[in-house]
Amino acid sequence: MSEAGFALDPRLAADTRPVASLPLCDVRLMNDARYPWLILVPRRAGLVEITDLSASEQHTLWQEVNRASAALRTVAPCDKLNLGALGNIVRQLHLHLIARRIGDAAWPGPVWGYGRAVAHDSTQLGSLIASLRQALAD
Amino acid sequence: MSEAGFALDPRLAADTRPVASLPLCDVRLMNDARYPWLILVPRRAGLVEITDLSASEQHTLWQEVNRASAALRTVAPCDKLNLGALGNIVRQLHLHLIARRIGDAAWPGPVWGYGRAVAHDSTQLGSLIASLRQALAD
Repeated sequence: MSEAGFALDPRLAADTRPVASLPLCDVRLMNDARYPWLILVPRRAGLVEITDLSASEQHTLWQEVNRASAALRTVAPCDKLNLGALGNIVRQLHLHLIARRIGDAAWPGPVWGYGRAVAHDSTQLGSLIASLRQALAD
Repeated sequence: MSEAGFALDPRLAADTRPVASLPLCDVRLMNDARYPWLILVPRRAGLVEITDLSASEQHTLWQEVNRASAALRTVAPCDKLNLGALGNIVRQLHLHLIARRIGDAAWPGPVWGYGRAVAHDSTQLGSLIASLRQALAD
């Protein structure tokens, strides 16, 4: 497994903040106060579909999704997790993991394409990232 | 792994048609001519989140998602696969796998919550299901 040539898509970089670097994926927080929303990006160049990963990398990917799910639920108790791999706009392979709450902005619809992101204030953003890092480390 | 007590949610049953029964999941076709759209439902009672499956069942789930992805792409060449596990409306655990094409009805947005399903005509539906069964068996 090599990270050679990997560079985070600039649109993902602009919309998110770094949380943690797991063995395969960077975990990033979407800067959108409407939902606790993680993005996982495997650090491999040229990936588009999950099936572009080797079997072993896919195994690691799903382990890291489980780990991120547990951390997200600890920090942001929710009614339902939403998992998605779309990539219709940003083709670089990335997975969405969102803690959905009954009555949240887009409930019960999907978050993608719904309204505009509401940026966290910087204190709230720092605190949420610190909590997520702690939960991922536990 | 036991299927005891499993019953397909009636809303999923109404919206989809059976394609194949893999070791863990039923594969069903959404009756929506706008997109080639599969639903995978693990035959286990009471599941809501992917993490409700054991590690071994999750491994099987992702193998079956890969197998369904390959079959879907064979039958319906596409520009991007979309994978989603939402469950905000129907809580019974089910995964969506959709073959997206540039310019399709919802492109580049998500399919969920976009407009209304357009039922296949029965000939088209039968032919698509037969092709998917063949591709899943190959």
